Amino acid sequence: MREAPRNAEIAPDAVGSFITPAAARFVRTNFAVPRIDPRRHRLEIAGAVERPIHLGLADLRALPRRTLVVTTECAGNQRTSLSPLPPGEPWLGGAVSTGTFTGIPLAAVLERAGLRKDAIEILAEGADAGKTPSGEAHFARSLPVVKALDPDTLVALEMNGKPLTPAHGGPLRLIVPGWYGMASVKWVSRLEALTAPFAGYFQSERYVFVESGRTAQPVREMRVKALFSSPAPGAAVELGPVLVSGMAWSGSAPIAKVEVALAGGSEWIEARLTGPEEKHAWRRWELTWIPPWRGRHVLRCRATDASGNVQPDVPRWNALGYGANAVQSVLVDVR
Amino acid sequence: MREAPRNAEIAPDAVGSFITPAAARFVRTNFAVPRIDPRRHRLEIAGAVERPIHLGLADLRALPRRTLVVTTECAGNQRTSLSPLPPGEPWLGGAVSTGTFTGIPLAAVLERAGLRKDAIEILAEGADAGKTPSGEAHFARSLPVVKALDPDTLVALEMNGKPLTPAHGGPLRLIVPGWYGMASVKWVSRLEALTAPFAGYFQSERYVFVESGRTAQPVREMRVKALFSSPAPGAAVELGPVLVSGMAWSGSAPIAKVEVALAGGSEWIEARLTGPEEKHAWRRWELTWIPPWRGRHVLRCRATDASGNVQPDVPRWNALGYGANAVQSVLVDVR
Repeated sequence: MREAPRNAEIAPDAVGSFITPAAARFVRTNFAVPRIDPRRHRLEIAGAVERPIHLGLADLRALPRRTLVVTTECAGNQRTSLSPLPPGEPWLGGAVSTGTFTGIPLAAVLERAGLRKDAIEILAEGADAGKTPSGEAHFARSLPVVKALDPDTLVALEMNGKPLTPAHGGPLRLIVPGWYGMASVKWVSRLEALTAPFAGYFQSERYVFVESGRTAQPVREMRVKALFSSPAPGAAVELGPVLVSGMAWSGSAPIAKVEVALAGGSEWIEARLTGPEEKHAWRRWELTWIPPWRGRHVLRCRATDASGNVQPDVPRWNALGYGANAVQSVLVDVR
Repeated sequence: MREAPRNAEIAPDAVGSFITPAAARFVRTNFAVPRIDPRRHRLEIAGAVERPIHLGLADLRALPRRTLVVTTECAGNQRTSLSPLPPGEPWLGGAVSTGTFTGIPLAAVLERAGLRKDAIEILAEGADAGKTPSGEAHFARSLPVVKALDPDTLVALEMNGKPLTPAHGGPLRLIVPGWYGMASVKWVSRLEALTAPFAGYFQSERYVFVESGRTAQPVREMRVKALFSSPAPGAAVELGPVLVSGMAWSGSAPIAKVEVALAGGSEWIEARLTGPEEKHAWRRWELTWIPPWRGRHVLRCRATDASGNVQPDVPRWNALGYGANAVQSVLVDVR
């Protein structure tokens, strides 16, 4: 958590909620929250389009809407599991939340301006701006056209059934399901169809996997991960059956299984997948554990997705600390 | 912490005390605390000696004593930093304590029995016993003769100026400065001079570094390590100068320096070494830090000893989880 710009992890008691209450959501901002008058806010659509336009909120509300349940994780979540510690927000594991987003497919918005065939990326620019090492800049990220035209990529107006508040990117926020949160540009005020790849600060200097001996790779899909929601870390429980539960997600495919290791060693027990199955949301899992003795126990959880991606034991280090998804553990005191 | 046998980390608020109060010390026991009547307790000295003898506490108290300040760390301390997690006690970082020990040099005790020239190891057996995968056994460990005859290796009678209590190995405990705690056999009731290497359960099946592709190595000297004592993990501090302090030790050489990284990245700032310099005890270090902004910060500390040993960023994994000494970090909320 950093006060200005404001950054905060999900409220610990909200990790077990399928839909994260707005007040409990994680927040990651690069600059101060911009002041926007929703009545006057215009979304500009420019660049490689047939007819550059500006759309107000009323114009957008007149278009057909979609509602999706989407889990969003910060690309730097769990950065503190990396050693040596890369620069950036020192997130533990709580920079992840799930919301119900209602909005207009970005494809429908672009269609109003007539996307040209030579466009290869769609740049989304937020109203927030400030200093970067490359100079004064707006927060801005581009999407490949194929992802921009995915019917699940939204220009969102509402979260959890209410207009998006300024803290969460309102009045307009891009929602890019399956991708780490940097793609879901908040306070979006400008879309530009590009005929050459965008190379702005937040596209090329940040949100890239920088690894020794490899070409830098863009950060995109959320890596597979499982999180404990109960017991809470360090919780004390009575000797007897304990319901162990949590959430698991992957940006690449549905969750295939979650396993739990109930002590040191390599015995992994498959948990039950329970609760709603939403294409872009985390999946709840649970398991009943009978502790063998009083004292401190370590539990670990590990998710595998339907594409065969599985969490590593040790996180894959990269210079900017993105995509850390090593198996997590929780300590429980059995009394 | 496990209730039976009892295992507990040092009390968190005692990490900053140069001498750990007895009640706050870490405890690691393999079996239940044996019942010993100090008035009847005899230390047997047998094996490759000229004249096997039994010494009572009064006999031992009649011999010249030494007092040493000794830091003892469990070989499995910080095991939870290893991934995948090896079996064994799930220690965080608090299985370490420092005490003032008064006792008779083991060399003087052995001299009473007349150590033979063909002796190569001294086996120390505790009065505690129980089941092991290799059958019923006492806790027992051997020392090479050269270490056994080191004038700082003690048969201790007192800790912190008082007779050793049963919880801490009383009435008689071996103290082997510089080595991990398994060597400091509690409730020692028998010493045997051996002419062949000891291969009991706690010598060959436990307390060995088992690493893929390497011959197993015995666990001996404590690896270099620094610990934070203040701020406590997760502590909230006011914006302004913050005194950051901790303890550092190595079983191989005196502490040469402790460095602190005040944020992500690789800038390490040297801390001041303060407080008593005792050959076998941890060294206090401190540094004044002025947080640059309100919010969550990560501090890391790293010790280097006079032999050039330095803590690694990532712990060296081994199958039984010993000697984990990676750089530790602490999260601090600046308000």
